[in-house]
Amino acid sequence: MDMAVNVAILGFGTVGSGVAEVLAKNHTHIDEKVHAPIRLKYILDVRDFPDSPFGDKIVHDFSVIENDPEVDIVVETIGGAKIAREFTERALKAGKSVVTSNKELVATWGYDLLSLAKEHGVSYLFEASVGGGIPIIRPLSRCLAANEIEEICGILNGTTNYILTRMIKAGLSFEAALAEAQQNGYAEKDPTADIEGDDACRKICILGALAFGRHIYPDQVPTEGITRVTLADVAYADACGRKIKLLGRAIRQADGRVCAYVAPHLISSEDPLGGVEDVFNAITVRGDAVGDVMFYGRGAGKMPTASAVVADVMDAARHIKSMKYVAWGPGGDDVVAPTDGLESAWYVRASADADAVRAAFGDVNFLARAGAPAKETAFLTGPMTRSQVESKLAGLEKLSLFRVLD
Amino acid sequence: MDMAVNVAILGFGTVGSGVAEVLAKNHTHIDEKVHAPIRLKYILDVRDFPDSPFGDKIVHDFSVIENDPEVDIVVETIGGAKIAREFTERALKAGKSVVTSNKELVATWGYDLLSLAKEHGVSYLFEASVGGGIPIIRPLSRCLAANEIEEICGILNGTTNYILTRMIKAGLSFEAALAEAQQNGYAEKDPTADIEGDDACRKICILGALAFGRHIYPDQVPTEGITRVTLADVAYADACGRKIKLLGRAIRQADGRVCAYVAPHLISSEDPLGGVEDVFNAITVRGDAVGDVMFYGRGAGKMPTASAVVADVMDAARHIKSMKYVAWGPGGDDVVAPTDGLESAWYVRASADADAVRAAFGDVNFLARAGAPAKETAFLTGPMTRSQVESKLAGLEKLSLFRVLD
Repeated sequence: MDMAVNVAILGFGTVGSGVAEVLAKNHTHIDEKVHAPIRLKYILDVRDFPDSPFGDKIVHDFSVIENDPEVDIVVETIGGAKIAREFTERALKAGKSVVTSNKELVATWGYDLLSLAKEHGVSYLFEASVGGGIPIIRPLSRCLAANEIEEICGILNGTTNYILTRMIKAGLSFEAALAEAQQNGYAEKDPTADIEGDDACRKICILGALAFGRHIYPDQVPTEGITRVTLADVAYADACGRKIKLLGRAIRQADGRVCAYVAPHLISSEDPLGGVEDVFNAITVRGDAVGDVMFYGRGAGKMPTASAVVADVMDAARHIKSMKYVAWGPGGDDVVAPTDGLESAWYVRASADADAVRAAFGDVNFLARAGAPAKETAFLTGPMTRSQVESKLAGLEKLSLFRVLD
Repeated sequence: MDMAVNVAILGFGTVGSGVAEVLAKNHTHIDEKVHAPIRLKYILDVRDFPDSPFGDKIVHDFSVIENDPEVDIVVETIGGAKIAREFTERALKAGKSVVTSNKELVATWGYDLLSLAKEHGVSYLFEASVGGGIPIIRPLSRCLAANEIEEICGILNGTTNYILTRMIKAGLSFEAALAEAQQNGYAEKDPTADIEGDDACRKICILGALAFGRHIYPDQVPTEGITRVTLADVAYADACGRKIKLLGRAIRQADGRVCAYVAPHLISSEDPLGGVEDVFNAITVRGDAVGDVMFYGRGAGKMPTASAVVADVMDAARHIKSMKYVAWGPGGDDVVAPTDGLESAWYVRASADADAVRAAFGDVNFLARAGAPAKETAFLTGPMTRSQVESKLAGLEKLSLFRVLD
């Protein structure tokens, strides 16, 4: 056994307390695998936790951690991009490796923080920031390293997948499914970041940066959530053997740029992603040599996320004072290609009669559902760009427009 | 850039030539990621390949590679456990890291070879030995390291999954589906190792050893292939919303031992494993913190397997002369628990009437299929061990008996 490795956790919320629990519960085999005892020394929180078994670790002042040379690894589970960023920078500058589950911080400041970590010869690791406990960051950066990655496509948000699953399986409206998700603790009181797609957007930024080597900023990624998905759309999708799923995609273009976006899609029920239900996440990676591989599991939750954080802690512990090299280049206008050029089939629901649709689109695949109001028409187009489909729709009253993934 | 890393490939067959191609095709980004140029120096084969772009690398004498101090990494894609074992041992003793896709060798001699690698301070890596290009070895040993693994369950053989898929979807008999698989190059001329389950057995041995920390030998793992699966069984499975899949399982028992076996199972079509078709593989890992995660992709094939080998080569190149630590303890009689104690529901097809079945089993779930001969009865039992179900079947003429995975 080597010398003890000391860990400080920032933020004793859901994930932070899960990290403390996993470290305590599995410490025998964790220490054995790392060949050193991992010791939880501090937990930073504004609150006290007198009844917690970890209550004696609580400190309120970050500088205690920052200035303690015994602390090797800082676990940041505060969330957000303000105080979390400040503490992460100070920890890295103090020569401590930082492990995080904070997708907002990595998606916004990842390049800067990775550069700062490199400068100080320490690690900045974030397996838990995407897909909860699903291993994806390390497989993407290591196991698939021999591949040129062509595309990443994933169901990246468990809350929206739960809502869509309940709409599809139980016939609940969006509002009712959201209320149920909130009751079950799958959606927050303010669900905006989930249902508007911002959470999925941050995750596809991180995956895209890892796969394609340049930082991708959330504001470069067109993002559409699921608030405009209706039960009518769910029924039409079912009529053509498809399901509606919120996908984050990052696709390498021939010119080397990356086309990245988040939007609802119709996908075949036979597609491996089509079978991903409830709060589960799944991420498909297409490499030039390996073809499609998929990673599947619970994308959130206290213990799954904590287990990913602790795996990173173990990795950092094995590489104390020598950086675990994960990095990408700076962002910029040359990184991201507009999604407008991306061709696909489209699902359209419009208030128009079939003749008007035929006049605008030519031959299309019409869809039917029980109880459709007069003049509602739904159909699948052939492959075309968004501007092409929008221009054909110019004279029609559009109700829904989603891409079809084939 | 660091100094060049020199690689020798043993065996210029399907996987070996794929490795040479991936190294050549993606060398720019491979070198960049490793921070050193990876150079293919030798290919060992008994044949010459005058028309191959790699023809000038061919050597016929292993000692050329063994005695060249410039060779850092040896890629073993010979297969089998004889000459491959000898060359692997000699390479490790010569201080070279070895990367392999050879599941037979790892399943049989893994503990000895890992110990030898450790003794000589080099790496022995085998990501490609299970699941082709699907990342599983590294995720299991690293990303899920914070978990106590409870169970591994997988569709580990693409050939048998293809045959079963064709039986289920196209109604082909086992023999016809096998012939088709051979025509398509998915099954070998002598398909024994695939259809009798030996290939899946080797893979579950490797996964079990990694997850539970002790070597598991193939002859400790009861193995049943798919040769006794009939179209009648496929039809009955369909009647209860299930599919027949060949699964390899390794399950941690309360006493710390591992229950490992390979056999056909009925699994729900809704189960993520139930949707895995054709030559695809999928491996589910259950950890105490993360819950179920699944890894999915092409489990075989030249380029997927080669991409996994090259990822290991890159990892070994980053750790030249310092072992990449993957290891497990020795095997023994105390490692493996008999499968007899494992309870499950069972699918039974028998030549018996319903009354005789009821007399033996009490209340069961009878299944129906079109065109069943008189006196054929099929049913699902409640949970019981194999000896329990066998003893109840004593007076009945058993036709098929498979576990049900719930």
